[in-house]
Amino acid sequence: PKYLATQEIIRRTEIPGVAIGLAWTPVGGEILFVEATRMPGSKGFITTGSVGKVMQESAQAALSYVRSHAVELGIDPDIFEKSDIHLHVPAGAQPKDGPSAGVTIATALVSLLTGRLVRHDVGMTGEITLRGQVLPVGGIKEKVLAAHRAGLKTVILPKDNEGDLEDLSEEIRQAIDFVLVETVDEVLQHALEQAVAEPASSPAS
Amino acid sequence: PKYLATQEIIRRTEIPGVAIGLAWTPVGGEILFVEATRMPGSKGFITTGSVGKVMQESAQAALSYVRSHAVELGIDPDIFEKSDIHLHVPAGAQPKDGPSAGVTIATALVSLLTGRLVRHDVGMTGEITLRGQVLPVGGIKEKVLAAHRAGLKTVILPKDNEGDLEDLSEEIRQAIDFVLVETVDEVLQHALEQAVAEPASSPAS
Amino acid sequence: PKYLATQEIIRRTEIPGVAIGLAWTPVGGEILFVEATRMPGSKGFITTGSVGKVMQESAQAALSYVRSHAVELGIDPDIFEKSDIHLHVPAGAQPKDGPSAGVTIATALVSLLTGRLVRHDVGMTGEITLRGQVLPVGGIKEKVLAAHRAGLKTVILPKDNEGDLEDLSEEIRQAIDFVLVETVDEVLQHALEQAVAEPASSPAS
Amino acid sequence: PKYLATQEIIRRTEIPGVAIGLAWTPVGGEILFVEATRMPGSKGFITTGSVGKVMQESAQAALSYVRSHAVELGIDPDIFEKSDIHLHVPAGAQPKDGPSAGVTIATALVSLLTGRLVRHDVGMTGEITLRGQVLPVGGIKEKVLAAHRAGLKTVILPKDNEGDLEDLSEEIRQAIDFVLVETVDEVLQHALEQAVAEPASSPAS
Amino acid sequence: PKYLATQEIIRRTEIPGVAIGLAWTPVGGEILFVEATRMPGSKGFITTGSVGKVMQESAQAALSYVRSHAVELGIDPDIFEKSDIHLHVPAGAQPKDGPSAGVTIATALVSLLTGRLVRHDVGMTGEITLRGQVLPVGGIKEKVLAAHRAGLKTVILPKDNEGDLEDLSEEIRQAIDFVLVETVDEVLQHALEQAVAEPASSPAS
Amino acid sequence: PKYLATQEIIRRTEIPGVAIGLAWTPVGGEILFVEATRMPGSKGFITTGSVGKVMQESAQAALSYVRSHAVELGIDPDIFEKSDIHLHVPAGAQPKDGPSAGVTIATALVSLLTGRLVRHDVGMTGEITLRGQVLPVGGIKEKVLAAHRAGLKTVILPKDNEGDLEDLSEEIRQAIDFVLVETVDEVLQHALEQAVAEPASSPAS
Ligand SMILES: [Ca+2]
Ligand SMILES: [Ca+2]
Ligand SMILES: [Ca+2]
Ligand SMILES: [Ca+2]
Ligand SMILES: [Ca+2]
Ligand SMILES: [Ca+2]
Ligand SMILES: [Ca+2]
Ligand SMILES: [Ca+2]
Ligand SMILES: [Ca+2]
Ligand SMILES: [Ca+2]
Ligand SMILES: [Ca+2]
Ligand SMILES: [Ca+2]
Repeated sequence: PKYLATQEIIRRTEIPGVAIGLAWTPVGGEILFVEATRMPGSKGFITTGSVGKVMQESAQAALSYVRSHAVELGIDPDIFEKSDIHLHVPAGAQPKDGPSAGVTIATALVSLLTGRLVRHDVGMTGEITLRGQVLPVGGIKEKVLAAHRAGLKTVILPKDNEGDLEDLSEEIRQAIDFVLVETVDEVLQHALEQAVAEPASSPAS
Repeated sequence: PKYLATQEIIRRTEIPGVAIGLAWTPVGGEILFVEATRMPGSKGFITTGSVGKVMQESAQAALSYVRSHAVELGIDPDIFEKSDIHLHVPAGAQPKDGPSAGVTIATALVSLLTGRLVRHDVGMTGEITLRGQVLPVGGIKEKVLAAHRAGLKTVILPKDNEGDLEDLSEEIRQAIDFVLVETVDEVLQHALEQAVAEPASSPAS
Repeated sequence: PKYLATQEIIRRTEIPGVAIGLAWTPVGGEILFVEATRMPGSKGFITTGSVGKVMQESAQAALSYVRSHAVELGIDPDIFEKSDIHLHVPAGAQPKDGPSAGVTIATALVSLLTGRLVRHDVGMTGEITLRGQVLPVGGIKEKVLAAHRAGLKTVILPKDNEGDLEDLSEEIRQAIDFVLVETVDEVLQHALEQAVAEPASSPAS
Repeated sequence: PKYLATQEIIRRTEIPGVAIGLAWTPVGGEILFVEATRMPGSKGFITTGSVGKVMQESAQAALSYVRSHAVELGIDPDIFEKSDIHLHVPAGAQPKDGPSAGVTIATALVSLLTGRLVRHDVGMTGEITLRGQVLPVGGIKEKVLAAHRAGLKTVILPKDNEGDLEDLSEEIRQAIDFVLVETVDEVLQHALEQAVAEPASSPAS
Repeated sequence: PKYLATQEIIRRTEIPGVAIGLAWTPVGGEILFVEATRMPGSKGFITTGSVGKVMQESAQAALSYVRSHAVELGIDPDIFEKSDIHLHVPAGAQPKDGPSAGVTIATALVSLLTGRLVRHDVGMTGEITLRGQVLPVGGIKEKVLAAHRAGLKTVILPKDNEGDLEDLSEEIRQAIDFVLVETVDEVLQHALEQAVAEPASSPAS
Repeated sequence: PKYLATQEIIRRTEIPGVAIGLAWTPVGGEILFVEATRMPGSKGFITTGSVGKVMQESAQAALSYVRSHAVELGIDPDIFEKSDIHLHVPAGAQPKDGPSAGVTIATALVSLLTGRLVRHDVGMTGEITLRGQVLPVGGIKEKVLAAHRAGLKTVILPKDNEGDLEDLSEEIRQAIDFVLVETVDEVLQHALEQAVAEPASSPAS
C-alpha cells in the first residue's frame, strides 16, 4: 500500500463527484477514489478501472438508488435522460471487486449530481441495497488502519459492523471519528459538504 | 447462515418492492430479500446480485407474468413503457441460482408496481410458470427452518410440496402457518398488505 | 420421470398459449409444457427455461413460420409489431435441447395468438421446417410411453416416423390415437380446439 | 446418408424460397434444403440450423449480393427495408459449415424474393464471392453421387471444378446433366423456373 | 498456393470495389481479392471471409480513413449515412489475419465508392495508419514471388520495405515494377484507373 | 525496438490528432503514435490496434474527460453528438495494454478536436483520472531512453514519478527537457502548438 499525503487527497477530491472508499487487499487496506463524471448524452452509464462483476452490479444498484430517489436527494430527475455518466476507479490497472464500495459510489454520484463536494477527510465502506439500506462488509480493521495512515478523520461504517471496532487499538479508536449508519441518507449527511460547488443542472460538470 | 433480528427484517421490508424469499444453501436454509425498484425509463430490466442464468430466466418469467396480467393485478399497463425496473438480491457477492425465487420475484414486482407492502412476517418459495402457476421446488425442510429462525410467521409453499411438510417437527408445524398455493394469485393474496403505501403511477417509487 | 395427474395437466393447459410436448431423456420419456405469453411491446422474442441453442433456433423457426403465415392462420399480421412474445418451458432448472419441440412451439404460438385452446389430451413431437413441413425425430417409443402414462389420448407424430410405431405394444397402439402429419397445418387441425377463449387482438393475453 | 424419395423432394420445394444444396459429410454426400422466408420487418436477417461461422458468413455474402443487385435480379429494392429474412437449413440438430452452400443460399433468396420456384430436380454447390462469381469447392464426387441417389437430374458446379468430373463413372456422367458456371447469374438461369408462383411485393410470402 | 490465370484475375476485378492483395502463408505467398460492395442502408459495416481480429481492425482503420477524407477522395460524404458496406475476402473458409491488407482494403473501398476500377495487374501490401500513412510489413519476398507467378506487372509496397527488395533475384526485379509509397494517396494514384465505371451516387453499385 | 528517424516522426505527426506516447516493452522502451480521427456520425467511439482492456478503459476515461470539459478546452460541445471518433494505435498487430497512455490519448483527442497540432518533439506518459489528474506509471527509465533515441526533446511525466529521474544518467538528464505534471491541463499546455491547423467545427478533419 502506498501512503498518500493529505495534500494529494485534498487535490483529488476538490471537484464534486469524487468520494474516498476504503478497500481491503491481501497486503492490507487501501484508500481508493471513486470518480464520477457527467456528459451530455442519454442515460448511458459506464464503469471503468478494472472493476469486477460484483462491483459493477454494486455500481448499478447505487445508480438505481440515486435515479429512483432523485427528488428527495435534490437532483433534477430529468438529468438522467440527457446525461451519460462515467464512473472510474483509478488506478486503472489494479483489479477491484466486491460490493463494499456501494456507499462510496452512491456518494460520488450524489456529489456529482448535486454539486456538493465530498468531505476530503472522510473514508467509507459498506454494501448498499437497492432501497438504500447499508449492509455489513469485511476487512474493517485493515480499512480503518488505511484511513488512519492516509490522515482521514472520519470513517463511515455499516451499523452491523459495530462489533468489528473492538479489534482496533485504543489509539485508533481515539483518533478516528466513527459514524455507524443504516441508510445511504445517513452516509450522505456525514460525507457531503453543504456548500454547492456547481449546480446540478449546469451544461456539463 | 446469519440470524437476522425481526427488527432488521421489518426495516428491510418497510418499502413496497421488497419480498422475503427462502433459499437453500449447502450449509442450511437462509432468508433473502428480493428488492425491486423503478425509474423513469423505457422497458429496461436488469437483475443484479450475483444471480445465475436460471434465476435470471426466472426473473424474466416473473416479469412477463406481471406485464401480461397488469390489468388484473391492478397495475397501470402503460407503466412498463415509461419505466426501467431493477431487481437486486443482496448480498451482492453471494452467488445465487435456481428457479425457486420465482414467487418471491413476482411478489416484489407486484408490490413495487401497486404500492402494496409485502407482509414482513411471510417467507415464500416456489417456481412459477409463465402463466402464473406454481411448481414444486427442493429444500423445503431447510427453508422452513430458516424462516422459523428468522421469526417469520407464515411460509408460502407450492401445493405440490405438501408432502415435504411431514419431514418437519411437530413444534415447527405448530409455529408456522403454511399456505399451500397453486397460482401466483394465491401467493399475492397471502403475501401483500391491502393498504397501498404509494400509488403505482407516482413519478418515481 | 414424474407422473402428472390428468387434473394437473388440465389445469396447466386451461389458458391459450400452452401446448404439451413429448421429450426424450436418458431416463425415459417425459411430457413438457411449452408456454407462450404476449405483452404490449415491439417484436421482442425471448425463450427461457434452460433451453439449448438447437431448441432456441427451433423456436425461431416456429415463430418465423407463424409470422410469415399469419393471415392463413387467422392471426392479425400487425400483432407482432406491437407485441413482445415470451416462450418458457418449465421446469426452469432442467436443461432442454434438440429440434423435436418444433411442432409444440408452433402450436403454443398459434394458440396464444388466435385464442384457441390446445386440447389437453394431445401430446406431440416433430421438427418443423421454416416452411411448415414436419420432419422425423428420435425417441418415439419413450415419448409415446410417457404420453400414455400421463393419460394423454392422442399423439401427433411426423409421418416419416410411422415405422417407429411397430416398436410399441399392441396395448399402447390400441390406447393411443396416433396422428401422422406432414405439415404444421395438420398438427394445428388436430391439436387446437375450435372455440376461441379470447380474441387475438385483445389488449393482453 | 438418408435416401429421400423424389416425391418428398418435390413436396419440400413446392414453395418459392427453397433450394437444394449438395453437402459433403464424413460418411458421404447428402442433399440439403436451404429454406428462406420473409416476414414484415426491417432488414433483419437470421440464420438457423446449427450453421457454423463460415457458412453464416457465406449467407451474409449471398444476401449482400442479392441486395446490391436487386434491380437486375427483378427484385423490388425497397423490399429489404420492410422485411425480416430468415434462412434455415434443416435438420436443425445437424452441424453444418463451410462456404460451398453459397450458390444454394443465393438461389433460395432470389427464389423467395421473385416468387420464382427452384426446379425440384436441380442440385448445386459452389462458393460465391461478394460480386457474384462462383469459386471451386471440394467433395464434388460425393456430392454428385448424392444428387444421383436422390434422383436429381441436373447438378450445377463451379467451372473451376470441371476437372473433378473425371473421377465420376461413365454411368453417372450420362445420367446427370452438369452445368458448369462462373457466376451466380448462370446459376439462377439454370435453377429457377420461369413461372412466378407469387409476386415478390405481396404482403408476406 | 494455387496459380490463377491472368484471365481469371481480369474477370475477378472487372467491377469497381475489388483490389488485389498479397498475403504471406506458411507455404508461400498468395494473391487474394478484397471485395467491397454497397447496399442501401445506414452506416452498417461487416467484414466476412474468416478474417481475424487484427485484420478486422485494419478494415475499420481503412474505412475510417476513407470516411474522414471522403471529400478529398472524390466521394460523396453523405453516402455512408445511406449505405451498408460489406467487405469480403474469399476464399471464405481460409483463415486470414494481420494488418498488411490495410492498403488493399482502402483501395477496394475507394474503388467501390468512386466507381474507378482497380488496375488488374497491380498487387499491393502495407499496413495503414488511421491518418493514411503506410507502414512496413513482413513477407515481402514471398508476396512479390506470388505476384510474379500470378502475372501481375506492378507491386505497391511501403517505402520502409525498400530494403527487402535486395532479397529478390535480378530477374524478378526486372519483371516487376515496384512502387514504394508513404501514403494511401500514392497507393490510389498507382492502383486506380482514371475511368469511372459507375458513379458513386448511383442507387446501388 | 526500431529506431525511427526524426523525419519520420515529423511526417507521422503533421496532422492534428496524433500524439507521441512512450511505452514499456519487455525488450525496452518504445515510442508509439496515438492517432485519432473524426467522422460525421453520432457519438460512436472505437479503439483499434490490438489494444487490451485496461488501455481501452483508459481511452474511455480520456474521452469522458474531454467530453465533460469541452468548453474549457475550446471544443464545440455539440461536436460529439454529430461525430464518430476512431482511436488507433499502430502497429496494428502488436498487443498493447495498461493505463499509461492516458495522457497521450487525451492529447490526441484534444488536438483532433481543436485543430492544434501536437509538438513533434514531445513524448509523454501518465495515467489520467476521470477528472483530469495525472497519476504515476512504471517504466520511466526505459521510456525516457526510447524518447532520447528517437530524438525527442521534451518528455512529459507525472509529478509523482519525479523520483524515477534519479535513475537516469547525467547525459540524458541534460539532453531531455522534463515536464512534471499533475493535471491534463498542464500536459496540453506543453504538448500542443498554439497555431490551429484546422478549426474543430469543419466538416471533417
Ligand atoms: Ca442492522
Ligand atoms: Ca473516535
Ligand atoms: Ca399440482
Ligand atoms: Ca401451523
Ligand atoms: Ca415424408
Ligand atoms: Ca390407436
Ligand atoms: Ca475460373
Ligand atoms: Ca450428362
Ligand atoms: Ca518511412
Ligand atoms: Ca522493375
Ligand atoms: Ca501528487
Ligand atoms: Ca534537461
